[in-house]
Amino acid sequence: MDIREIGRRAAAEKAYLGALPAEEKNRLLYLAADRLVRKSDAILAANEEDIALAAAEGMSCAMQDRLRLTKERIDGIAEGIRAVAKIPDPVGEKEFMSERPNGLKIYKVRVPLGVIAVIYEARPNVTADVFALCFKTGNAAILRGGHEALRTNIAVVETLREALAEGGSHPDAVQLLTDTSRETAAALMHLREYVDVLIPRGSAGLIRAVLRESTVPVIETGAGNCHLYVDESADLPMAVKILVNAKTQRISVCNACESLVVHRGILPDFLPAAYEALKPWNVRFHADEEALPYLPGAEAATEEDFGREYLDYEISVKTVGSVEEAAEHINRYSTAHSETIVTEDAEHAETFLRAVDSACVYVNASTRFTDGFEFGFGAEIGISTQKLHARGPMGLFALTSVKYEIYGNGQVRQ
Amino acid sequence: MDIREIGRRAAAEKAYLGALPAEEKNRLLYLAADRLVRKSDAILAANEEDIALAAAEGMSCAMQDRLRLTKERIDGIAEGIRAVAKIPDPVGEKEFMSERPNGLKIYKVRVPLGVIAVIYEARPNVTADVFALCFKTGNAAILRGGHEALRTNIAVVETLREALAEGGSHPDAVQLLTDTSRETAAALMHLREYVDVLIPRGSAGLIRAVLRESTVPVIETGAGNCHLYVDESADLPMAVKILVNAKTQRISVCNACESLVVHRGILPDFLPAAYEALKPWNVRFHADEEALPYLPGAEAATEEDFGREYLDYEISVKTVGSVEEAAEHINRYSTAHSETIVTEDAEHAETFLRAVDSACVYVNASTRFTDGFEFGFGAEIGISTQKLHARGPMGLFALTSVKYEIYGNGQVRQ
Repeated sequence: MDIREIGRRAAAEKAYLGALPAEEKNRLLYLAADRLVRKSDAILAANEEDIALAAAEGMSCAMQDRLRLTKERIDGIAEGIRAVAKIPDPVGEKEFMSERPNGLKIYKVRVPLGVIAVIYEARPNVTADVFALCFKTGNAAILRGGHEALRTNIAVVETLREALAEGGSHPDAVQLLTDTSRETAAALMHLREYVDVLIPRGSAGLIRAVLRESTVPVIETGAGNCHLYVDESADLPMAVKILVNAKTQRISVCNACESLVVHRGILPDFLPAAYEALKPWNVRFHADEEALPYLPGAEAATEEDFGREYLDYEISVKTVGSVEEAAEHINRYSTAHSETIVTEDAEHAETFLRAVDSACVYVNASTRFTDGFEFGFGAEIGISTQKLHARGPMGLFALTSVKYEIYGNGQVRQ
Repeated sequence: MDIREIGRRAAAEKAYLGALPAEEKNRLLYLAADRLVRKSDAILAANEEDIALAAAEGMSCAMQDRLRLTKERIDGIAEGIRAVAKIPDPVGEKEFMSERPNGLKIYKVRVPLGVIAVIYEARPNVTADVFALCFKTGNAAILRGGHEALRTNIAVVETLREALAEGGSHPDAVQLLTDTSRETAAALMHLREYVDVLIPRGSAGLIRAVLRESTVPVIETGAGNCHLYVDESADLPMAVKILVNAKTQRISVCNACESLVVHRGILPDFLPAAYEALKPWNVRFHADEEALPYLPGAEAATEEDFGREYLDYEISVKTVGSVEEAAEHINRYSTAHSETIVTEDAEHAETFLRAVDSACVYVNASTRFTDGFEFGFGAEIGISTQKLHARGPMGLFALTSVKYEIYGNGQVRQ
């Protein structure tokens, strides 16, 4: 189908979806979850085809694993949809703002964004996930997954559309671009007439490409060059524990720590302890001149190292003389995702919280907590690293907008 | 100065501006207002040069009038700055969100956007206006006005910067692009590294061009193809009064009415009355087939007419059979700015409010009220016609974002 026709169909569902009561949306989400489980065999067969093709094209085992679905993973996806059904629906909330001197009564009503397009890569769990979040907030979804997952995505989206039809709803609430060409993706990025927001989910390269091309408003998500600053007053065992967790618990995620910033005064005490603690993972250090002597085998850090999101067992190390200098270094190199300070000095903590210009700033905790579920949002469509519209973990609320409803009795402007 | 250097300087002020207390910002705004008044002569002299050049280049008198400053207009601009000083400052508000089961305490803090760039046309009052709104919310401003107002803008921004220096603050809180070439504007639109948001203010053409070019997040403002729907149950004298106000009170503004939608059942009663009431302004009607017979001298409406923002004494007229049909027509052709229904039927009013997908939807009032001052925001940087980040009149709040501050005591993720 032509991309404009897909956009037109999505936009045509806005009025219907925006008016759906929460209970009705929840009922349909449960239907969708159940049907995914029921159709597991067909979905797994499609997934097998994707895997076989990907393997033939030389996809790495790690990537194949991301692409692979199993009976258990489909159950998990269905459970995720049911979890979204359980979150309160923000749409329709009507707040009285003010009565103006002329008698106009102004209300602010929470409404869906309208049509949300999501461009993502080879993880087929995203497909059902994004559908559930968009549908729950009354938005029509246009999905464009990677070509590696095409057969799986077709099977998943067909199942979701069948569930909507079965429940007496509108299948066009979710549409998949089956043409995964770059040209069609580019056309989607310019479909401003129909698409209200575009969310890219995936690698830094994908996100950059979307930002460059899109005239549809984009929410930038994901890239995380996260910092851990160990203050002079830090509880050093706590700092070591947080460092190990933030660096090694899961290396491929955006909230993993990629850079260690250490106060000069504690270099000789902290770095050897950090080195020992990270030894089991063979972490590679890229350290500045002052830190190098304490880290056997470390390489000298280049300017580029400080800006890198390694997503691997690697970390850069920077020495500073104060919390202010730490904040300056972080503001210069971070992607404004998540940073943390380990300190026993409450004033230093406050200085850091104020000075660091990132979505999530922590005191004495791992950066790994930046996540919609950990924040108690019950779901997450991504982590915004921009300041416009949404910042940090984006739950249902980030998929809504407002509308002003104004009641008069004949008012005209003088 | 190089555009990248301007961006770098603006970004360098973020930490300073974000930490300024409200009283300090207000003190500096008053200084700026006073200094503008004190330097009126120099500003007026610069403005004279702009006007003379513009006249020589054949600028219309109406445009010259928009460009012209007078002693009184400068007083008005200064009064506008003082008014912004009086509005409460949203920056720094800290809201406790939740304590997680693991003991993490999550706070949400209101912060400036950071660096705001505004591209606008030949109205020099915008210069001081935008500075005041950005400064009050702790944002650094990069201004790019039209070349016709360049000398005036230089004089105004120099005065503002002097006031900041005089008050012991940082002049780089506001910078003007004195190179008004398209190339430099385009470079500004790609300065994502330093600029957090770009707001175009001006003609539909300017806004479209910015949307097409910019990789910096844009807030779309301004274009208004606003509709008035007269329901079958309408109080007809009220409908006539609102129509006259919305169409003729000020034709060049985005919240003026550009299209009249009328229920079939009242065509013979309402249209002749509307025609008579609009006669003094010689309004040109572009009417559909059913409405034509009631509007002497009207032209047949083309498809294009329904989508036009006339900004003139012209209006399109569409006949419909129900409130739902009216909403459909409006959603198809409007720019999602402001629409109004005149009706005595409360159910029709609610249907219209729900079904019309625009920023501001009115019942029994003129569309002319869509305005930050009329909404009680105390100021306005524009009217957003997109759904992302801000919708409708944008006050100070729209120039802020949030940051999460999370307090732990050694938490790591399992």
